[in-house]
Amino acid sequence: MIYVEKLLQVVNRIERLNIVSMHQMRRRVNNLTKPLGSLGRLEEIAVRLAGITGSVEPSVDNKAIIVMCGDHGVVQEGVSAYPQEVTGLMMANFIRQGAAVNVLAHQAGAEVHVVDIGTLLTDLPEGVVQRKVRPGTANMAKGPAMTKEEAVAALHVGIDTAYELADKGIEVIGLGEMGIGNTTPSSAMTAVFTNHPVEQITGKGSGINDEALAAKTKVIEQAIQVNRPNPGDAVDVLAKVGGLEIAGLVGVILGAAARRVPVVIDGVITGAAALAACRIEPRCQDYLFASHLSVEPAHRIVLDELGLKPVLYLDMRLGEGTGAALALPVIESALQLVAKMATFEDLGIPSPAPEEDEFGFAVQ
Amino acid sequence: MIYVEKLLQVVNRIERLNIVSMHQMRRRVNNLTKPLGSLGRLEEIAVRLAGITGSVEPSVDNKAIIVMCGDHGVVQEGVSAYPQEVTGLMMANFIRQGAAVNVLAHQAGAEVHVVDIGTLLTDLPEGVVQRKVRPGTANMAKGPAMTKEEAVAALHVGIDTAYELADKGIEVIGLGEMGIGNTTPSSAMTAVFTNHPVEQITGKGSGINDEALAAKTKVIEQAIQVNRPNPGDAVDVLAKVGGLEIAGLVGVILGAAARRVPVVIDGVITGAAALAACRIEPRCQDYLFASHLSVEPAHRIVLDELGLKPVLYLDMRLGEGTGAALALPVIESALQLVAKMATFEDLGIPSPAPEEDEFGFAVQ
Repeated sequence: MIYVEKLLQVVNRIERLNIVSMHQMRRRVNNLTKPLGSLGRLEEIAVRLAGITGSVEPSVDNKAIIVMCGDHGVVQEGVSAYPQEVTGLMMANFIRQGAAVNVLAHQAGAEVHVVDIGTLLTDLPEGVVQRKVRPGTANMAKGPAMTKEEAVAALHVGIDTAYELADKGIEVIGLGEMGIGNTTPSSAMTAVFTNHPVEQITGKGSGINDEALAAKTKVIEQAIQVNRPNPGDAVDVLAKVGGLEIAGLVGVILGAAARRVPVVIDGVITGAAALAACRIEPRCQDYLFASHLSVEPAHRIVLDELGLKPVLYLDMRLGEGTGAALALPVIESALQLVAKMATFEDLGIPSPAPEEDEFGFAVQ
Repeated sequence: MIYVEKLLQVVNRIERLNIVSMHQMRRRVNNLTKPLGSLGRLEEIAVRLAGITGSVEPSVDNKAIIVMCGDHGVVQEGVSAYPQEVTGLMMANFIRQGAAVNVLAHQAGAEVHVVDIGTLLTDLPEGVVQRKVRPGTANMAKGPAMTKEEAVAALHVGIDTAYELADKGIEVIGLGEMGIGNTTPSSAMTAVFTNHPVEQITGKGSGINDEALAAKTKVIEQAIQVNRPNPGDAVDVLAKVGGLEIAGLVGVILGAAARRVPVVIDGVITGAAALAACRIEPRCQDYLFASHLSVEPAHRIVLDELGLKPVLYLDMRLGEGTGAALALPVIESALQLVAKMATFEDLGIPSPAPEEDEFGFAVQ
């Protein structure tokens, strides 16, 4: 099992945040010409980016969105409003820049990387990164979605993708996904990890009706009952009731954290991936930023569990990385403010009185 | 009173939204390659911008932030954490591009217009638009902040500013302000307009302690008691317990709405101005977009009263137009998506089933 050893090496590399850089950044932020703390969460973002990167001059100029794509055998159970072919059609749409994530990523100045980690499509459009682990998962309502080996292979696809982007100089990664039916495994994973009842967690996804929602809830309950995933073993959960693109996203988070690259999550699918990543290595949490609050009920549960607060409230439920793309400029704003605002000394206004930093130490 | 006749002419020009353009925009939005409604409030923003501009291809490419600046006699009562001179120092900071609003406006591609409508500063930095109605308000804890004539004059400064920007081709206006002490009149206005108890509305502004907060609350109660502003007469409220920059912002809203230019409000001061504008002419509401939710308690009350939902939750309390600047790219995103996303026809995917638009009519 060479694969698992490599995975452990990556996890082993995930370090805690650099608290010296955080303290230094807090001092810089406090000397900017504004009332203490008045930039609210933008200040916290700047401080955390300093901790992640170990720099008081962090940059998120080089941005990427990774869109992991996979298909789901559980679609046979009628859990989605769309036919399975739409996964492939949307991959083509990403490549021709026609999808929402393309437009928003372009506006944010982010590259979009489309990875086929497990769709049914055989004839891939040029431009899609081919890393197929298997063509779609099995129907998790009847048995495991994939083997544990396949789940680990999908984790490695994500790790490798994050490493490649870090090698290229990418400084922040937004998570996106495409896979008809993938709110179903995401809700199942969230139910298993958080122990919330399935009916509290399951939503209408891309737009099913109340009747289909009730059926979807039953399918998820059945999948959990049939497979009995072990909540203490995230890879087991991913294999039994997860998805290939979800496992890929978990790998991206692990890889990015190992390389000290901040990660912006999107909606309920990337949220389930974030939960799994933090179960594998809790330090991942410090590398994650929430973007928006989705209308899917599982999303708030996931964000609360991760201690993350979304910055945007737009009642979206699209996925693809659209929320992550919208939040990238906000995260960039935090650093722009630190880099460009005048300080109290510049203006001849007395600096504010010392206060305590995140660690209870005085910041002058 | 020639002034009032001119004001009535402006108000008379504020029309309802163009529901034909809104219907057409809803159809465009529904044909984009995404599940129906999945872009949430971005879709509503696009539809409302169509209604405001009367165009199915609205633009917010040309953006401006107006920073109205004024001083407040009530600062004598010790309501602020900062000395009054900071108003002038911050105006200079705006001109040298050193303030938070400059950094965020630059990132959003917005011009910043700094207007002195009533500061104590006599030696204005070059670049500040000089429209001083009077040098600071009187202490509203002891009598009216200004005369009704001065309030109307300040309204006209705002109207003229909005008209000048509309003439220049500005397509969206963000509201900003600077004035040490100005959460005090804003809270007073909000209490008068919404009939909420003053202690529910008053916050710590730029950062006073609990003791000073109690004193500030008493000052506001006293100002309302001494002046007895008429809640049914917004100009009376502005004159008695308002501020020059707040009246200027009311004028900007009226002028922008008259010219069918959307307005993005910021925090609690611009929120109080929005309340006043909507009391003068309720149709103003349709032209307003909320940006962020401030930590000042009055802000949520104002937004609820106006039926507006913020898009950003950043726990900010800075003012200047910082929240408005941060929201401009989000508003632009709504239009970028409509302009650039592929449609279902482009992809050969069947269009979604017809649904009802905002008016209950079928949209194919």
